[in-house]
This record gives sequence, structure tokens and C-alpha cells, in this order.
Amino acid sequence: MIYDFPLNEKSRTYLRLESLFSQIRDNLGCDQPWAHIAFFKGLFDLQELLERGDLRADLIKDLERLGQRLTHWASLPDVDLAQIKQMQQESSQLARSLLNSSRPGVRLKEDRLLGSIRQRFSIPGGLCAFDVPQLHHWINTPVAVRHQQMQQWLSDINLLMDAISLLLRLWRESGSFNERLASNGFFQDTAESAELIRIKLTGNQLCYPTLSGHKNRFALRFLPSAEQQIGDVSFLLACC
Amino acid sequence: MIYDFPLNEKSRTYLRLESLFSQIRDNLGCDQPWAHIAFFKGLFDLQELLERGDLRADLIKDLERLGQRLTHWASLPDVDLAQIKQMQQESSQLARSLLNSSRPGVRLKEDRLLGSIRQRFSIPGGLCAFDVPQLHHWINTPVAVRHQQMQQWLSDINLLMDAISLLLRLWRESGSFNERLASNGFFQDTAESAELIRIKLTGNQLCYPTLSGHKNRFALRFLPSAEQQIGDVSFLLACC
Repeated sequence: MIYDFPLNEKSRTYLRLESLFSQIRDNLGCDQPWAHIAFFKGLFDLQELLERGDLRADLIKDLERLGQRLTHWASLPDVDLAQIKQMQQESSQLARSLLNSSRPGVRLKEDRLLGSIRQRFSIPGGLCAFDVPQLHHWINTPVAVRHQQMQQWLSDINLLMDAISLLLRLWRESGSFNERLASNGFFQDTAESAELIRIKLTGNQLCYPTLSGHKNRFALRFLPSAEQQIGDVSFLLACC
Repeated sequence: MIYDFPLNEKSRTYLRLESLFSQIRDNLGCDQPWAHIAFFKGLFDLQELLERGDLRADLIKDLERLGQRLTHWASLPDVDLAQIKQMQQESSQLARSLLNSSRPGVRLKEDRLLGSIRQRFSIPGGLCAFDVPQLHHWINTPVAVRHQQMQQWLSDINLLMDAISLLLRLWRESGSFNERLASNGFFQDTAESAELIRIKLTGNQLCYPTLSGHKNRFALRFLPSAEQQIGDVSFLLACC
């Protein structure tokens, strides 16, 4: 079990978006009776985050910074040059495509079915068949038809998803896990120019980590999930 | 495909609750990766509806009224007396239990894990592992453990669910479907002392019904789900 904690606002937003993407993708074309609830919640949350700031500009900057980092890595001894080259290509192509793309999420805003669902989504029990009969009808259309429409809604967001996935993947790969011990559940350290702190626990540890901190310093506190003493907690830590 | 439309505020609330119950129950102990989203949304919506009014009092009154109706039915010729007797028992026992029960939903309000999830549920992307690590931990506990905890959360709501299920079942059974035609997608009629209007359509009709009306009069308008002329729509109608 891995917990990723962001150390700044930007990585916080990227992690939120990544989680929403996976919520949306896992429920896309899923034929479970209530999968559309998680799908639409993911989609509307995503839409709200997209409207808040200029994500594209941040991403392009980060992709460029990533390109410089890759160039630096390529100059080190004993590296896999072919792989670095491929990542450089991927990253610069994503940056170019983002630069030429329209503002992501416009398609979501204009869709009428989505509009009528979103309007009632936060009303308790507001998605009953008598409230939004068009949703009830839509849920009962064949899964392949719905899947295609969902793909269309996402078409102008895919690029964003890909860019964030690439960035987070490389951030994560840049750190490696080391064994640490939290005495009485507490641990603190510095993290020079890191974006994320990753905590790995084995599945049967009856506790979860919470992190406070910002930029270079952080403190971890492990809390028990049941009523028990926390004691010392051994865990794996990566600064990325 | 059946669409149920309420004709008054009370049946509207009952239908909403029934839909939330089925959303909660279907996602209870479901091991799909995002089933907890639909489960928690159902639960928090339910909780908000429960806090609005004194549902118990309404339900007890309706169960008593149902008892009188059943007594009347029992006096008619050619009825299944054994079945009526069983329903009478069921209904009066539910009314008694409701009368002696504590206000439903208190357990939901007091649970700490639910509290921390609810607090962040409406924040876009606010259920990330770094926001609510205890949820992330909980999702990764064995499904049997989670199932048991979910059952506990619902323990003081089950009675309400059963009462609403019984009422709606008998309301629905009290009406029978008849063929009707909506010329140019439009149909209107009166419905003396009915609680619900039920519309049955075949799965391949590319339209959905909308209903306006209140108490004794109602008007149905069928809308096309794709861009096409609506024309005449044949459907089955039951006033319950």
C-alpha cells in the first residue's frame, strides 16, 4: 500500500487529477449498476478543477523542465540512452500538442445530457428516474453506445491526462524507497526540492500515515486505524 | 423499462429513499474499485433526507392506512385471504417497531470515519489518499471486514427501508398496466387519489417520458433521446 503526499500546491493538483482520471477511466464502460455515479462524480469534480486555473500553462512549463532534466540525465554515465531519448520525445510532443490544443473541458460544459445530470447531482437523491428521466433512459442503452459517448466527452481531456501521467510517473521513478522507523509513530525529515513524499506500508499494518509540512521540511505521524497503541512503525520512504 | 412518477411530496420522498437504498445496498460489500463512491454518496444523501423531516411519523400513518385498506380488501370476494393476512401482520409489526425505534440515522452521524469522509465528499477530488488517508487504508482492508462495518452503519435504517419497500410494493401492486397512446408524444388524464404514475416502455423506444401535474391531474410528454421527430408513442400506463 502506497500513500503519495504532495509537497506543494501544484503536485497536490496533479495528484488530485490523476486520482479523478483513474476514477473516470475505471468506470468508463463499466456495466455495474451504479458505476455511472462514480463516473459522473469524477467527471464533474474534474470539470470544476479544470475551471480553476490555467493547468495547461503549468503542465507545459513542467514538461519543459522535465526535458532539461532528461538532457542532464543523458550526460551521466551508465544510463539507458534509448529510454531517455524516448521520454524526451514523448515529453516534447505532449508539450507541443498542449500548446496547440483548445482549453480542455469545453466539450463537457456544452453537452446537454451532462448539463442536466450535473444540475441535479448535488441534490440528495436528485438523480431518481423521475428527476432526470433522460439519465434513466441513457443508463439502459447498450453499454457499447454509452462507452462511445463517454469517450467523446473525454476526448479533449485525454491530452491532459497523458501529460500528468508522464510527469507523475517520472517524478515517482526519480525517487527510491528506503527503510525508516517512526518512533512512537512520529518521523520528520527534510526533502530538498522534492515534489512528493511516498510512504509504503505492508497491507497488514493497522495504521495510516498523515503528513504535515511544506516545501523542504515534513513531519509524518502514523495513526492507528483501530483503538490501540501506535508504537514504533517501520515503513519505506521515498522523496521524489 | 419502467418510470415511476410521484404525484405528491410524500411519494416523491419515498421513491427517492427507495432509490438511495438500492444504491447503498448494491454497493454494500461490492469489491469493484470505486463502489465506495456510490455507496457513500447514497449514504450521505440518505442522511440529509432523514434530517429534513419526521419520516417515521409519516410512515406509521401510511402503514396504518394500508392496514385499513387490507381489511377492506379482505372483505371482497375471491381474494387470497392468507396473503392479505400476512401483509396485515407485516405492516402492523413494522408500524409497532417504528414507533419504538430511535430516530434513524443517528449512528451515521456519530461515526468518525464517516464524518471525515463526508466532510470532504463535496470538495472536487477531495477524497485523495493524502486528503483522507484513513479512507485509503479502509478501502484496502478485506471486503468482509468492510461489509460488516457497512452493515453496522445501516443497522438503524433497515427498519425504514423495510417499511418503505412494503408500502411501495403494495402501492405498485394496486395498479395494473393498460395500453395507451400519446399522440405526438403528448398524453393527459386524471388520476383519482393515486400516489404514483407508472410508465412502461419497451427497451428500444428512443424516447423518455416527463410528467407534470399534481394530485388528480397529470400530463405526460415524451421527448426524443436523439435528434428525431417524436410522433405517436404507445406505452403502458398504471395509476397506483
